[in-house]
Amino acid sequence: MSTLQNRQFRLTSRPVGMVKRSDFEFVTAPAGEPSQGEVLVRVQYLSLDPAMRGWMNAGRSYIAPVGLGDVMRAGGIGRVAVSDDPSLAVGDTVVGMTGVQDYAIAKARDLTRVDPRLAPLPRFLGALGMPGLTAYFGLLDIGQPIEGETVVVSAAAGAVGAVTGQIAKIKGCRVIGIAGGPDKCRYVVEDLGFDAAIDYKNEDVQRALARHCPKGIDIYFDNVGGDILDAVLSMLARRARVIICGAISQYNSMESMQGPRNYMSLLVNHALMEGFVVFDYAARYPEGMQALAGWTIAGKLKAREDIVEGLETFPETLQKLFRGENFGKLVIKVSE
Amino acid sequence: MSTLQNRQFRLTSRPVGMVKRSDFEFVTAPAGEPSQGEVLVRVQYLSLDPAMRGWMNAGRSYIAPVGLGDVMRAGGIGRVAVSDDPSLAVGDTVVGMTGVQDYAIAKARDLTRVDPRLAPLPRFLGALGMPGLTAYFGLLDIGQPIEGETVVVSAAAGAVGAVTGQIAKIKGCRVIGIAGGPDKCRYVVEDLGFDAAIDYKNEDVQRALARHCPKGIDIYFDNVGGDILDAVLSMLARRARVIICGAISQYNSMESMQGPRNYMSLLVNHALMEGFVVFDYAARYPEGMQALAGWTIAGKLKAREDIVEGLETFPETLQKLFRGENFGKLVIKVSE
Repeated sequence: MSTLQNRQFRLTSRPVGMVKRSDFEFVTAPAGEPSQGEVLVRVQYLSLDPAMRGWMNAGRSYIAPVGLGDVMRAGGIGRVAVSDDPSLAVGDTVVGMTGVQDYAIAKARDLTRVDPRLAPLPRFLGALGMPGLTAYFGLLDIGQPIEGETVVVSAAAGAVGAVTGQIAKIKGCRVIGIAGGPDKCRYVVEDLGFDAAIDYKNEDVQRALARHCPKGIDIYFDNVGGDILDAVLSMLARRARVIICGAISQYNSMESMQGPRNYMSLLVNHALMEGFVVFDYAARYPEGMQALAGWTIAGKLKAREDIVEGLETFPETLQKLFRGENFGKLVIKVSE
Repeated sequence: MSTLQNRQFRLTSRPVGMVKRSDFEFVTAPAGEPSQGEVLVRVQYLSLDPAMRGWMNAGRSYIAPVGLGDVMRAGGIGRVAVSDDPSLAVGDTVVGMTGVQDYAIAKARDLTRVDPRLAPLPRFLGALGMPGLTAYFGLLDIGQPIEGETVVVSAAAGAVGAVTGQIAKIKGCRVIGIAGGPDKCRYVVEDLGFDAAIDYKNEDVQRALARHCPKGIDIYFDNVGGDILDAVLSMLARRARVIICGAISQYNSMESMQGPRNYMSLLVNHALMEGFVVFDYAARYPEGMQALAGWTIAGKLKAREDIVEGLETFPETLQKLFRGENFGKLVIKVSE
């Protein structure tokens, strides 16, 4: 097996502002062989996630930064090519942190076997993967939606936002999505069943929120931060819950983070703002997966993937994510 | 009674930046007579509170703004001089929203009778009044302190902060106060029993927090906002609770509110930030009052008042509050 050639993106510098190709080196190395308890995975699809930008920064966070010289961290799905663990067989389809490369060696216990007949493979990186679980636990555990409440979701056409809004609909809420451009807005209303969508690129978000949320906003699931978070804060209903899932508008900023200027709305409305990362709920993943799969099979949870071909496109594909140019869960197809 | 002369501060313009004397007119008018269900109160002490600055602004909040031309809103304590309600007798001591004036006509049901033998009168506007209740409900209901946790309190020598820290000590927490100047810092440690104090005027708050809170901050009770809030956010422990009680550093700012730049610490640490105003807990005031009075009698809850003589000093005394120059609960003595 040692003759297998493995292309890898390694992080070589901490990006300043927008991530760029020169922050990585693209090298080819032997794939290596799994030790006892490990498997060699042929990566098929890689997940592109906003959180990746944070992993590239130095400094304390919920997870260690990617080391300089290390393969860039990424979730992926692939097929077991070599196994040195009894729990996984050659040919099994597995999900896990494969890194941005053709082949990954991973501990069998760090991988999750999935049934590839259940859905197209990229979906296991989206609605049936970490983004879906992120939506599930953030909305239900922190938001605790009540039937009839008004829920606003930013990045509504994105991997997390699309699932969040659909779960809120399943729970009987009125759901307003915020997305960039008329196509995404049409998608979240017509395909995903949101009650309304606001096009932040072409509408005054503040005014549109006032129009769509006459009784205020009970739950806000925030993926973007910045001015949209401030607009929502100014419209909170009493006892509102603001779920901090991400702040993609700020991750590549050259200036310091923009804090929510309207946070005193929390005081006025006895509201709360709570953050989380999906890893906090690792012990409950099976519950979340079961719910997401059930809704998918029942036709209540739809999803869309934006598939870019070729491992070699990684830096530019990641830029596409941060520019909001993807439409649906963004993945790279590495191999068939 | 109509010959009683009543001096009043009426709000005549919405302040821009720091509040100033010219935002009010100081007039004398007949005190008037109470109608059925009302009493006339001779005001003895007035409460000066950070929230007053917000009440002067136009726009929606948890309470209507003071109207232009209206007597400035203020809490006060005084003696019933005339009563037209069977529930209150002449000579009773009452607390309520008297306004910044010598005499107030109020509905008997909007006033609370207190026992003046229990404590010096100004204390009913501080540790045994709204500030004490604010500390009680904010810390216990939102913060839910657990023995051994690390609690940080800003404006620690102020009316709310001093009570908050002492309740946290009663609950078995380690308590770090942040206050301005060595005298206040000495007071919170030596007199109030905090474990440590940080002098934000003479110390690097960030570094001092790192020194005093090696395991991070479990609860932060924030009265000040601004840079101190950001410093604390960067030091949160997992599952921390940030209680937003006020943001006095921002109330008189000419620029737009400074939002907490480090709010993504909520995400990293699965922490929450929740706001409240004491009025949210009106139904539970008796519970709070009983606890505060009990601790006071037991010698576990100490307090200090900063008494300024003379109703006519109101605008400058309010400035003193916003400059942090008061030491203890700031009140104006209006009459014996």
